[in-house]
Amino acid sequence: MRPVRRRIEIGRSALESNDAVAARNRAEFERLGLFAVNLVSSPGAGKTTLLEALAGRLGDAMAVIEGDVKTSRDADRVRAAGVRAWQIETGGACHLDASMVARALAAMGIEPGMHRFLVVENVGNLICPSSYDLGEHVMAGLLSIPEGDDKVLKYPALFSRIDLMILGKTDLSDRLAFDMDRAEEECRSLNPGVEAIRLSALSGTGVAELVEWLERRRLERFGRTPGQA
Amino acid sequence: MRPVRRRIEIGRSALESNDAVAARNRAEFERLGLFAVNLVSSPGAGKTTLLEALAGRLGDAMAVIEGDVKTSRDADRVRAAGVRAWQIETGGACHLDASMVARALAAMGIEPGMHRFLVVENVGNLICPSSYDLGEHVMAGLLSIPEGDDKVLKYPALFSRIDLMILGKTDLSDRLAFDMDRAEEECRSLNPGVEAIRLSALSGTGVAELVEWLERRRLERFGRTPGQA
Repeated sequence: MRPVRRRIEIGRSALESNDAVAARNRAEFERLGLFAVNLVSSPGAGKTTLLEALAGRLGDAMAVIEGDVKTSRDADRVRAAGVRAWQIETGGACHLDASMVARALAAMGIEPGMHRFLVVENVGNLICPSSYDLGEHVMAGLLSIPEGDDKVLKYPALFSRIDLMILGKTDLSDRLAFDMDRAEEECRSLNPGVEAIRLSALSGTGVAELVEWLERRRLERFGRTPGQA
Repeated sequence: MRPVRRRIEIGRSALESNDAVAARNRAEFERLGLFAVNLVSSPGAGKTTLLEALAGRLGDAMAVIEGDVKTSRDADRVRAAGVRAWQIETGGACHLDASMVARALAAMGIEPGMHRFLVVENVGNLICPSSYDLGEHVMAGLLSIPEGDDKVLKYPALFSRIDLMILGKTDLSDRLAFDMDRAEEECRSLNPGVEAIRLSALSGTGVAELVEWLERRRLERFGRTPGQA
């Protein structure tokens, strides 16, 4: 039994150490005036396409950190949409951790007041990211219509932790059987305080509502920023 | 540096111990006449719907082990399609390992000659399952059209290891931009021997081709089974 016991102890110590770095990240986000979002979904649920749609509305009010096992494809896409973006390649790790985000933030050279939002696009995975606080103010879970409406209870660690459930790719709901009420109800059964937004980054439906949600949550945290509409 | 070093040693020893159990699983699959497939994809890519389609063609020639973090929804669906199925709930683990499969196999009470195929549906995840041999004869990676054609190089550990790449939900290719040639070429660039099948479990296109592929690979491994067409 000894190897298992040692493994659990190391796991707990790694999470405690992650939490300490996450707390420092949070302090740094506040110093910089950044409201930070940890965006989690399956691979291919549409996180990057959603960031491209947000770029069209928030412009350089937003900065982005991209997490992927490999390639800088996502950061390239977000930069092409006119947004400051930094790519983290985890090289095998199935989630971001607070230290990776701390190093990215230091490398990006953001000064106070440069941006109002930082969206961290986590590695595409519904399991591993749910244990790692990155220092974000809110965690958003994106579930896309093609994935099916049975996913919430299959991945309870994530869906019980998120602040916002985004149902995405709703433009496909004419072709695919997905009960949006069911998915939201199952999420609230795990997580009574969760809020929900339905959107299509391709058609644009719901994107303004997400921007309003982000502005409202930022205002609650930071108050009004000089120069903000 | 000591904690990191100990973690890596434990990781390696866990993988070696997994490989030893996987070798015993493989011997047991052969004793039972089961050609074993490890089916890996993102959450919601359509693994269970594909198994329902295979059930319509293979009937009780196939048995299934389902892996999920939580719920027995997938095993319930496959049983409703008339197939012997066993649910593993990993309770948080982001992948199956060989010991979980060994325990499921023992509990299922399969006798030699009862089934010709065992499909193990892994936990929905493109990262963690790629390191764990379950004792399978072939690993199949399912990538669905809604996930996007950029996923192969983002998840190289999986796509460089699979024997078969399945492009699924091709019925949606009229609505979604997905370059199937690009995805297959990128997979072959990592993995020159990989084979590829395009299918839609909903429309049925390509399912017969997958059954033929499975029968051919089983024949290469086991030779002809008495009573097989």
